[in-house]
Amino acid sequence: MTGPGDFTVTAAAQGSAARSGTLMTVHGPVHTPAFMPVGTQATVKAMTPRELRECGVEILLGNTYHLNVRPGVDVIEAAGGLHRFMGWDGPILTDSGGFQVFSLAGLRKVSDEGVEFSSHVDGKRVFLGPREAMDIQRRLGSDIAMVFDECAPYPCSREYACQSTDKTIAWAALCAEQERAEGQLVFGIVQGGVHADLRARCASELVAIGFDGYAVGGISVGEPGEVLLETVRGTVPRLPADRPRYLMGVGRMSQIAEAVACGVDMFDCVMPTRYARNGTAFTRTGRYPVKAGEHRADSRPVEEGCTCYACANFSRSYVRHLLNVGEILGVRLLTVHNLHRYMEFMSEIRAAVEGGVFDEWRRETAARIDDR
Amino acid sequence: MTGPGDFTVTAAAQGSAARSGTLMTVHGPVHTPAFMPVGTQATVKAMTPRELRECGVEILLGNTYHLNVRPGVDVIEAAGGLHRFMGWDGPILTDSGGFQVFSLAGLRKVSDEGVEFSSHVDGKRVFLGPREAMDIQRRLGSDIAMVFDECAPYPCSREYACQSTDKTIAWAALCAEQERAEGQLVFGIVQGGVHADLRARCASELVAIGFDGYAVGGISVGEPGEVLLETVRGTVPRLPADRPRYLMGVGRMSQIAEAVACGVDMFDCVMPTRYARNGTAFTRTGRYPVKAGEHRADSRPVEEGCTCYACANFSRSYVRHLLNVGEILGVRLLTVHNLHRYMEFMSEIRAAVEGGVFDEWRRETAARIDDR
Repeated sequence: MTGPGDFTVTAAAQGSAARSGTLMTVHGPVHTPAFMPVGTQATVKAMTPRELRECGVEILLGNTYHLNVRPGVDVIEAAGGLHRFMGWDGPILTDSGGFQVFSLAGLRKVSDEGVEFSSHVDGKRVFLGPREAMDIQRRLGSDIAMVFDECAPYPCSREYACQSTDKTIAWAALCAEQERAEGQLVFGIVQGGVHADLRARCASELVAIGFDGYAVGGISVGEPGEVLLETVRGTVPRLPADRPRYLMGVGRMSQIAEAVACGVDMFDCVMPTRYARNGTAFTRTGRYPVKAGEHRADSRPVEEGCTCYACANFSRSYVRHLLNVGEILGVRLLTVHNLHRYMEFMSEIRAAVEGGVFDEWRRETAARIDDR
Repeated sequence: MTGPGDFTVTAAAQGSAARSGTLMTVHGPVHTPAFMPVGTQATVKAMTPRELRECGVEILLGNTYHLNVRPGVDVIEAAGGLHRFMGWDGPILTDSGGFQVFSLAGLRKVSDEGVEFSSHVDGKRVFLGPREAMDIQRRLGSDIAMVFDECAPYPCSREYACQSTDKTIAWAALCAEQERAEGQLVFGIVQGGVHADLRARCASELVAIGFDGYAVGGISVGEPGEVLLETVRGTVPRLPADRPRYLMGVGRMSQIAEAVACGVDMFDCVMPTRYARNGTAFTRTGRYPVKAGEHRADSRPVEEGCTCYACANFSRSYVRHLLNVGEILGVRLLTVHNLHRYMEFMSEIRAAVEGGVFDEWRRETAARIDDR
């Protein structure tokens, strides 16, 4: 019998830190390495829960900041929590709102207790700190809550990064003390910008507090790709091997493959869904613009050999037409395809680790995929 | 054994001209009275073919004018026709483009041969007349093609209505001579504005030419509701009882009930889909705005007792939230509900006619529904 928070490593790769495993949550197991589609406003854009299941999705990410603004946590709590509100009975991870407070909100006033800011929707003054963020996530009833952190921008001064890291550590300690929903897991977030020593200090302080899992945050905020992977390589080995590790906001399939090799277990990113809305299809070899004129009368599916609902039933020519005339169905079909592709990609990773061939798979994949 | 064009009246009401029946097409039977959702650009907005089936949809309407502009009839013909292009294997009726030429296109130059106009998309000069419209519909491979007509605006002078009717009759005769796709039916369209004598002349001329079905056109173009029904009442009895009758562009459920009582068998309208995009739900008693603040924490479905996918799985509160934050899923769920409601409505009509209780049903419905 396993309970929420149990994390079993089922296979470990040779020649890299890649591993596959299972994280148990109140709403069932998550097979890792896992990719979480982003459901910002209590919906993965353009998708029903049924379609997410058909694409192989196991766990979603929800956004505390957005849900708190609209419809309001009281509405979701009254509906019986986020799962029942949005009709998704699988695991949900909620971020803490920290990232949005620092990237989206206006007129911030930061104190030791948290941040007062103006809502990006109606300018209303809102206060969010570690206590508030944990309380909202408890009321949302997510399976995994994230601590409230300060995500430093890139680039930023070492002084700012240092203060921001201190604040993140202090806030993490406060978050760990707050009441949780039954069986809810809480993950710490390592900040520290691009400074290896700050990241190391943050990681060791968080481990001393003790969390159900650990995330690498403040990544994918505009820094060059090599800096991103360097930071992951420096940080992940400092996190406990018996706990899941989550790289926030990443990303490209090529980056995911490299991060898995560093020992990362969980990912989230808007890429598959956002790129679908822009008319870009992801494939086994990278990505391409479906709207391009060369696909006008192309009878092939969006990706040959793909078994998703879009590729099994419609031509590239049809999807291109729908996107070109602004039809919702075009965005829907491409979102289905892109999420299916990402889920297949994660499934390939797990199979490669479990089959003892991750290193070969990783080399073959790096040579094949161009998704920069 | 029945073939395309066979029309069987299965039941006739007492006390009104309502009837139920079956129209056979190349892609299967259509049970009448039937409502056709509008699939202007080779998609019923926001819906997959699978979802249309789940809502009980049997036949769609496609728009010749729009499909000719984008993606172009050559693309659809190369894909094997409209059915294969859009993944819908049920019957499709295509309009002739006449209505759009006179309502949407710019810089029209009308001659006896047809209309030269500027495309509403890129201003390109296009010529569409009876020959062209029938040729495009043949290449689209629709089950039912409509003749190319001139739809007079409301209001318009008697002189204009008279000329317009003459043109429509002459064009209909030309359309009847054109080559068709295998098994394709062709329907004539009665015009004549609000003038009973012009309508009567147009009807008798069309019947003399002989068509597989007859439509009442030039309706629902801004005239008062009583004028609409008066025109229907005056026109429908002049159309052969052994052929299907189609009231174009109508409409509200209350109007459909009255038109069925006049002997109309087929309808199309953008209302269920367009109103969904504006956040309006249709119900057994009329319609209401789902976005209204009173539904903020309403745990009931969009319509109590409804069995559609949206109502079976999501609350009004959730659908309201999605619509308010502009999420595609909100439009999707409300479109599913509205189409399901319309299909249920048509199913009730057929059951009432077949059960010999249409008159009671019609009175009860008129008292219940307020969808003005």
